[in-house]
Amino acid sequence: MTEKFPFHVIPKLGALGIAGGTIKGYGCPGLSITTSAITIAEVARVDASCSTFILVHSSLAMLTIALCGSEEQKQKYLPSLAKFSTVACWALTEPDYGSDASSLQTTATKVEGGWILKGQKRWIGNSTFADLLVIFARNTTTDQINGYIVKKDAPGLTVTKIENKIGLRIVQNGDIVMKSVFVPDEDRLPGVNSFQDTNKVLAVSRVMVAWQPIGISMGVYDMCHRYLKERKQFGAPLAAFQINQQKLVHMLGNVQAMVLVGWRICKLYEKGTMTPGHASLAKSWISLKARETVAIGRELLGGNGILSDFLVAKAMGDLEPIYTYEGTYDINSLVTGREITGLASFKPAVLSKRSRL
Amino acid sequence: MTEKFPFHVIPKLGALGIAGGTIKGYGCPGLSITTSAITIAEVARVDASCSTFILVHSSLAMLTIALCGSEEQKQKYLPSLAKFSTVACWALTEPDYGSDASSLQTTATKVEGGWILKGQKRWIGNSTFADLLVIFARNTTTDQINGYIVKKDAPGLTVTKIENKIGLRIVQNGDIVMKSVFVPDEDRLPGVNSFQDTNKVLAVSRVMVAWQPIGISMGVYDMCHRYLKERKQFGAPLAAFQINQQKLVHMLGNVQAMVLVGWRICKLYEKGTMTPGHASLAKSWISLKARETVAIGRELLGGNGILSDFLVAKAMGDLEPIYTYEGTYDINSLVTGREITGLASFKPAVLSKRSRL
Amino acid sequence: MTEKFPFHVIPKLGALGIAGGTIKGYGCPGLSITTSAITIAEVARVDASCSTFILVHSSLAMLTIALCGSEEQKQKYLPSLAKFSTVACWALTEPDYGSDASSLQTTATKVEGGWILKGQKRWIGNSTFADLLVIFARNTTTDQINGYIVKKDAPGLTVTKIENKIGLRIVQNGDIVMKSVFVPDEDRLPGVNSFQDTNKVLAVSRVMVAWQPIGISMGVYDMCHRYLKERKQFGAPLAAFQINQQKLVHMLGNVQAMVLVGWRICKLYEKGTMTPGHASLAKSWISLKARETVAIGRELLGGNGILSDFLVAKAMGDLEPIYTYEGTYDINSLVTGREITGLASFKPAVLSKRSRL
Amino acid sequence: MTEKFPFHVIPKLGALGIAGGTIKGYGCPGLSITTSAITIAEVARVDASCSTFILVHSSLAMLTIALCGSEEQKQKYLPSLAKFSTVACWALTEPDYGSDASSLQTTATKVEGGWILKGQKRWIGNSTFADLLVIFARNTTTDQINGYIVKKDAPGLTVTKIENKIGLRIVQNGDIVMKSVFVPDEDRLPGVNSFQDTNKVLAVSRVMVAWQPIGISMGVYDMCHRYLKERKQFGAPLAAFQINQQKLVHMLGNVQAMVLVGWRICKLYEKGTMTPGHASLAKSWISLKARETVAIGRELLGGNGILSDFLVAKAMGDLEPIYTYEGTYDINSLVTGREITGLASFKPAVLSKRSRL
Repeated sequence: MTEKFPFHVIPKLGALGIAGGTIKGYGCPGLSITTSAITIAEVARVDASCSTFILVHSSLAMLTIALCGSEEQKQKYLPSLAKFSTVACWALTEPDYGSDASSLQTTATKVEGGWILKGQKRWIGNSTFADLLVIFARNTTTDQINGYIVKKDAPGLTVTKIENKIGLRIVQNGDIVMKSVFVPDEDRLPGVNSFQDTNKVLAVSRVMVAWQPIGISMGVYDMCHRYLKERKQFGAPLAAFQINQQKLVHMLGNVQAMVLVGWRICKLYEKGTMTPGHASLAKSWISLKARETVAIGRELLGGNGILSDFLVAKAMGDLEPIYTYEGTYDINSLVTGREITGLASFKPAVLSKRSRL
Repeated sequence: MTEKFPFHVIPKLGALGIAGGTIKGYGCPGLSITTSAITIAEVARVDASCSTFILVHSSLAMLTIALCGSEEQKQKYLPSLAKFSTVACWALTEPDYGSDASSLQTTATKVEGGWILKGQKRWIGNSTFADLLVIFARNTTTDQINGYIVKKDAPGLTVTKIENKIGLRIVQNGDIVMKSVFVPDEDRLPGVNSFQDTNKVLAVSRVMVAWQPIGISMGVYDMCHRYLKERKQFGAPLAAFQINQQKLVHMLGNVQAMVLVGWRICKLYEKGTMTPGHASLAKSWISLKARETVAIGRELLGGNGILSDFLVAKAMGDLEPIYTYEGTYDINSLVTGREITGLASFKPAVLSKRSRL
Repeated sequence: MTEKFPFHVIPKLGALGIAGGTIKGYGCPGLSITTSAITIAEVARVDASCSTFILVHSSLAMLTIALCGSEEQKQKYLPSLAKFSTVACWALTEPDYGSDASSLQTTATKVEGGWILKGQKRWIGNSTFADLLVIFARNTTTDQINGYIVKKDAPGLTVTKIENKIGLRIVQNGDIVMKSVFVPDEDRLPGVNSFQDTNKVLAVSRVMVAWQPIGISMGVYDMCHRYLKERKQFGAPLAAFQINQQKLVHMLGNVQAMVLVGWRICKLYEKGTMTPGHASLAKSWISLKARETVAIGRELLGGNGILSDFLVAKAMGDLEPIYTYEGTYDINSLVTGREITGLASFKPAVLSKRSRL
Repeated sequence: MTEKFPFHVIPKLGALGIAGGTIKGYGCPGLSITTSAITIAEVARVDASCSTFILVHSSLAMLTIALCGSEEQKQKYLPSLAKFSTVACWALTEPDYGSDASSLQTTATKVEGGWILKGQKRWIGNSTFADLLVIFARNTTTDQINGYIVKKDAPGLTVTKIENKIGLRIVQNGDIVMKSVFVPDEDRLPGVNSFQDTNKVLAVSRVMVAWQPIGISMGVYDMCHRYLKERKQFGAPLAAFQINQQKLVHMLGNVQAMVLVGWRICKLYEKGTMTPGHASLAKSWISLKARETVAIGRELLGGNGILSDFLVAKAMGDLEPIYTYEGTYDINSLVTGREITGLASFKPAVLSKRSRL
């Protein structure tokens, strides 16, 4: 359970030809969203951290450049990112603005020839070693959100690795501090003029994230199925016990449903009818079922279920950040809830003085 | 919450043109299994009892005649059944053989010109007023299961309605007693020569049964969605409360997954690759999620949730027999478990003398 | 599953000597709250409806008279109620004010020699045949809640039975309409001068209600334990199957915990340290576990689990109103939540225009 | 999240005066089982690994010597163990005999002046650095289980640390290999003459283990309660949101019930009426609720919930081995199931050839 990032693997990932996912041109594979999602799931089936590394680089950072960047930016940055010759990250979340991300406080102030960014970001995957950082900040003139491409070695930029994660441990998340970081005009993303502009990117990334728990659950099912047939107790393979069979079948039922819900969301996206509520429902429902599935799997492995060597324990940890990132289960529920009821309920109740109840 | 069967509705059901479902010819609509399943779900969305009445008549009794009957039997019985001019039931389960149905004890003994049936059946839906009863019995010569068409007024046949059900209350289930019931040779179903021959029928009916909880859950979701928007407490529609939104979204996520799992099983059937384990998994997983969905719906309706007027309370009761019939959740789990592990675990452990643990 | 109230049983209930519960004097038994709670549970173990009938009469109506009545009122009403010679009900909830009960709209206007009550009440148990109705109304002068004893035959008072309940079916809940019902001064309860004054009563009744699901669950466990040992499938008692044993043990674990939580709340009450949050937590947590327990029990009974003859199906229905009355699970959660956080969250979020999330 | 064992802490643990727990004399504190259990819970509330370290040393190894050792052995070994001047471990489980521990294969063969032990042990906590190892082996003459005290440096004994655990990470579990380890006669425990003799020890240790999840859950509740009041989103403390309050209250309800179930089992033990089924039920039910409680807590901490710095993530990992050791949830269920039904169901079904279902 090392926390070292296996940098030597990155070139091999480049050879898979999946970076850039749905992006067409600029050296990217132009996959359908369904194919792109399945590649993420198949990587997650083996190692969830690796799928997150790819997802941040490809479905967040590269996609933002592809959807919101200028033609020059796309030509300049995407080909090398598509080969993993350079690595990118994507910085939205701030220390005090997680679920309430749209209230972010990092500022971008126009100056001669560029912009000055000030503020902090937190939890930013890949940020400790990324060559390019896509960073969102509030324009001090318009009060709207803008997007920027920041280089790794920009003066005033420091990134500190977040330690002691229980999941996705080889993904390096960073705390970013920007003390007057200068970004030249050419590195402002012209297509990001409000928080809404991030939604085009998040729509895709949320679909991709929804497929990570599917992949993880498939990997866990594979392992449990094999283990139950090989391991014996009381003179019979564990697979012969009623309780174990019922658990394994429950896992399979969940996996099947998760795959179908994931597939459906891709089809909605491809038809152009996917709403934010659809994406949030898919991500939240799938991750809920994955958590249930992986916990059952953990039980099936008994004592060996607590060793990360047997995959399941590792998967259990890996699932927790996924359950929470790109919208926690609760926030995604409320996004969908708003869509189906027409009423927003994110904010808490007025702090009532009444104590009659 | 009357227990009277609404006989006046039956002719109207005939007009729907759905009896016979997938059967081609003989006045039947020859629907695809997907279409047939959706009709069942749409009926269940409004009233689950009605969908069970149709399912027993059409997907069990008529289908057995269509798949295992002679050409003469099909021509003689199916057209009138397809119009609901006559009603049929299907009798497999016995008082002491529910989950273990294949061990049934009713006997069929060959006599001059026909057969003598002796034994009991239990839980047989529609049996109290059915014109035709498809009955399974063990051939006393071959020890194999055979099938027979028995007429309502056959001497020696008595049917007693089972009272005090909490669900599917307008479906009349009967306790059947056969004291030397004579069945002429022409009413023996030539295609039933072993228990395995019932599997062709059960394969279809299990798919249909899997769609009942889908329909029920859709109806419950509809009602809750409407109720939350109309009912106010604390000065706001119930739909505006976080807890309620989260519950409604959970329901929707379940419903979507259930529909997809139901749709998938139909596609497997249509491709000819559906196994018993597939069907059992679909039926058990869907009914598990429906139970969860309907219980959440019950909560959302508060006090009104305990009145059958508001549909949800009624749905909660209706779901329980469905959770259990055509294989309980547990039995269906073990059917699938056997298929994916290659090991049967239906029977209990040897009653061990060891007390070391 | 009759809805007829078994009036002939009432005199026998009187002989049990439990009406009045914790009240001392006036013909009441003066039980400790623990003993009183256990009597409720033991009645619920056999029949939940009966326990609700007693609870409404004793722990709500009689207790209100005992705690908030004048000495004359106590002497006049309690002895006959203690013998069940007269029956009482307790009317707080209104059609539009369930969870938000403190906002009730029924009015009480002072007139010469008494008061005029106008308004509606809903869900009032025992109200269709009660001799005395304890009714809460908003004083039109003070805008505070007052309490009144209304006689069965008071002009302007009509009570309509609520039909089609799925649980506690022999309890008759009524919709009460009061069109200018005159109540003489002597029947105003002097101790009810604000909504807070009902809390002394609700503190006790909530403890009693918490013990109903305990009794129900014990009854269900008893039945399942017996059934599993008697019923055979596949050649062995159902009790010999792993899955069934695990379910039965899960039920027992829940029952044991429920009893202990119920016992603890009684001890806190007896020490005088029980808070509303304590009572709400006990009621909500216990009813949550009971719902889980009874659903497991329903599964264990297979097909027979859907017949009310076997107790479990009936218990499943009976539990639903209890899960909801005296504060739904959600409302009780939020009462406790307010106490442990110091923040009220009953009211919904401000209906936000922001759509940034 | 270091895996280093903090050896410098051990002397401080000695100063707590809790090693030996319920043992009287020999420098041990002679606590009641209730007090001893609460000390374990309070340690687990801060750090679960530490509580496991103590439990293995005290409630397994020391207690075995106290209950099954000779007077000489007690005087020789217990005083130093009570001060943590020496550390002990307890070795029952073998690589192929976990749930089925009573079938262990390690052998003890009588030789001149002592015994020769051969075999393997797995998962043995503290074994990598313990001074004394209490080891169970099958007497090759009687075929019964015997117990031995083995010294750390005994020739033929090797212990390898098990790596990559997701929980209780500072507890060092070892794989033990014994190649003809000689144990002098004086180090055979005279009170262990069959597997049943371990039950006296396991009865106590199972009670202690049941209190570990209680302590962990209390610690997690403390952390969540504090976090919700401090952390803000959408302009309000997280504690003000309905969904969060409901989760926190659910946790509190579980914790309260767990404490009561734990307390009850101690009282049964003190009265001398605790059965194996009681202990197994307490351990399994409590650990089930703890798992639920800790998972809810993990959600409440959002992103910070995946960092072990915030305790909850760490607790989630720590709970998994506890859920499994001293009998998995399933095995403990079946131990209780056997007791309440009189039927053992540990062994799997006969592998049936029938495929009729």
